[in-house]
Amino acid sequence: MSTSNRQIVLKARPKGRVTRENFETKTSPVATLRDGEFLVRTLYLSIDPTIRGWIDRDTYLPAVEVGAVVRSAGAGVVVESKNPKFNVGDHVFSLLGWQEYAVVGAKESPAAIPPGIDLTDALSVFGVTGMTAFFGLNEIGRPNAGETVVVSGAAGATGSIVGQLAKAKGCRVVGIAGSAAKCEWLTRDLGFDVAINYKTDDVGARLTAACPKGIDVFFDNVGGSILNEALARIALRGRVVLCGAISQYDNLDNAYGPPNYVNLIARRGRMEGFIILDYAPRFMEGVMALGALLAEGKLKHKTTVVDGLDSAPDALRRLFTGDHDGKLLVKVADG
Amino acid sequence: MSTSNRQIVLKARPKGRVTRENFETKTSPVATLRDGEFLVRTLYLSIDPTIRGWIDRDTYLPAVEVGAVVRSAGAGVVVESKNPKFNVGDHVFSLLGWQEYAVVGAKESPAAIPPGIDLTDALSVFGVTGMTAFFGLNEIGRPNAGETVVVSGAAGATGSIVGQLAKAKGCRVVGIAGSAAKCEWLTRDLGFDVAINYKTDDVGARLTAACPKGIDVFFDNVGGSILNEALARIALRGRVVLCGAISQYDNLDNAYGPPNYVNLIARRGRMEGFIILDYAPRFMEGVMALGALLAEGKLKHKTTVVDGLDSAPDALRRLFTGDHDGKLLVKVADG
Repeated sequence: MSTSNRQIVLKARPKGRVTRENFETKTSPVATLRDGEFLVRTLYLSIDPTIRGWIDRDTYLPAVEVGAVVRSAGAGVVVESKNPKFNVGDHVFSLLGWQEYAVVGAKESPAAIPPGIDLTDALSVFGVTGMTAFFGLNEIGRPNAGETVVVSGAAGATGSIVGQLAKAKGCRVVGIAGSAAKCEWLTRDLGFDVAINYKTDDVGARLTAACPKGIDVFFDNVGGSILNEALARIALRGRVVLCGAISQYDNLDNAYGPPNYVNLIARRGRMEGFIILDYAPRFMEGVMALGALLAEGKLKHKTTVVDGLDSAPDALRRLFTGDHDGKLLVKVADG
Repeated sequence: MSTSNRQIVLKARPKGRVTRENFETKTSPVATLRDGEFLVRTLYLSIDPTIRGWIDRDTYLPAVEVGAVVRSAGAGVVVESKNPKFNVGDHVFSLLGWQEYAVVGAKESPAAIPPGIDLTDALSVFGVTGMTAFFGLNEIGRPNAGETVVVSGAAGATGSIVGQLAKAKGCRVVGIAGSAAKCEWLTRDLGFDVAINYKTDDVGARLTAACPKGIDVFFDNVGGSILNEALARIALRGRVVLCGAISQYDNLDNAYGPPNYVNLIARRGRMEGFIILDYAPRFMEGVMALGALLAEGKLKHKTTVVDGLDSAPDALRRLFTGDHDGKLLVKVADG
């Protein structure tokens, strides 16, 4: 097998939107394994908004150092092992990073992917994306049947699952997305009751019409003025699930604060953030619930796969322009 | 007894800071009692920030109509009764309004004040103010011993009690107030660990120094940039208790939104509002807890009393300028 390892490292922290110039490619020898470690050949990388935070500043994990491999979740195959739990040929999910080969130990949080599970599913509906939707909605949002749930970034990997989970719970579901095609997908294919195109519609007016009893749960992936419009219409004891703020990540030093947060006082509202890693011990619960819905045909999802390790920087940039459908993955090698 | 009733009614909704011109005085005959009602002679009125909301717009209660008596909590003495539970001579707490006499029925939420309880205490530490501090801190903030609790409006009626309750729980307590004298009162008399004068200090820098492990609970009475500075320093799983936003009430249509709300995501923070009326069935619990602390000498409080019904509009205005100490009451008549 090859002993050289192509890697994409952080060259300079982004100012505003990420560009190719923030990264550079280098080739290093594959490191020697220590006891307990194993070597994974990367097959797919998961392109997630949180990477934008990791390469920018300390968040819930320390910032990626300039010169270091870009941190990223991914799925791959074990090609060498000094860990009795992971054998050559096994498929694993782990923090692999943007590189062809990753030495994986406990701190990369590896998990086995059972035979028969498609790796793209393992990185989307059964991965962090699906878990984020499941635990964020149920543990933070806590929707009840008959309530109104609004989702921003609704055609995205997480948002599209959130909406379908809320429908399965008997909620009225309104999605906010960025194109007519995405909106049509939400209402026609995924069963959303209403879809709002934030690029062409008056979001506030459409939310008022779509949510006559107010918004019980707002699952927010975007932040900005859309969050503010949702807070304007938050129902008594409404809940705002702070999953992300993708509209703000490029400019966090001048982020937008939603003035309508004051409505949380009189309406006894709650706005709460979460990080999915905290729920890792309960992921089986989420996988089983999503698997059951998939089996019943009640959960659809889309994946956009782009080819080649070198396309990872552009793929990350695409997350912020929205010109992709569902979960965005980079295919690094054939499995 | 007098059959005429002097009342202060809403003349025009305030634009910005309240002024005397928002109100006018009129004299009406005292209404005839129906079965279940009783007549209360107002002795004290409680001047609370929430009145600013009530005369402006629908909040958790419908807006006071223009021409109607200004809604206000108060304490008084029963002078006539067609309700077997309330007898002439009894002291009561109720939504009396800015008037000399109030006809009280179930919708004014009357509660008996036991003999021996000072009416000014009944309207402050044992009233909505004390209950707001107790339930807001314990039910929304949920502080644990050793945690850092920051309170804004700390020298106010609610804030000063919040800080002392947090001290009694074994927390590190930092207060933010608007004068050197208030700050000295907090640290010297009330046992706050640190007091910050927001008018002269760099609030952010002082919070950083005073909260080396971040802010576990921020009890917010003021909103605005102080809320944003607290959110900048929110600890992992920190809680923001949204009690009020007095810095914003004069200008809600152009309210300030705190950009640092995004920190709630990575730090798994929670920002939650509450309305004390929801806890009314549990008020006895709060009264007992505060009474026990008072008896042990662990709870101090200040009251500013101004004389005469006609001073109510100016008193309401004073809440927003901060030139009062502790609980602000209007004395309408001798008990």
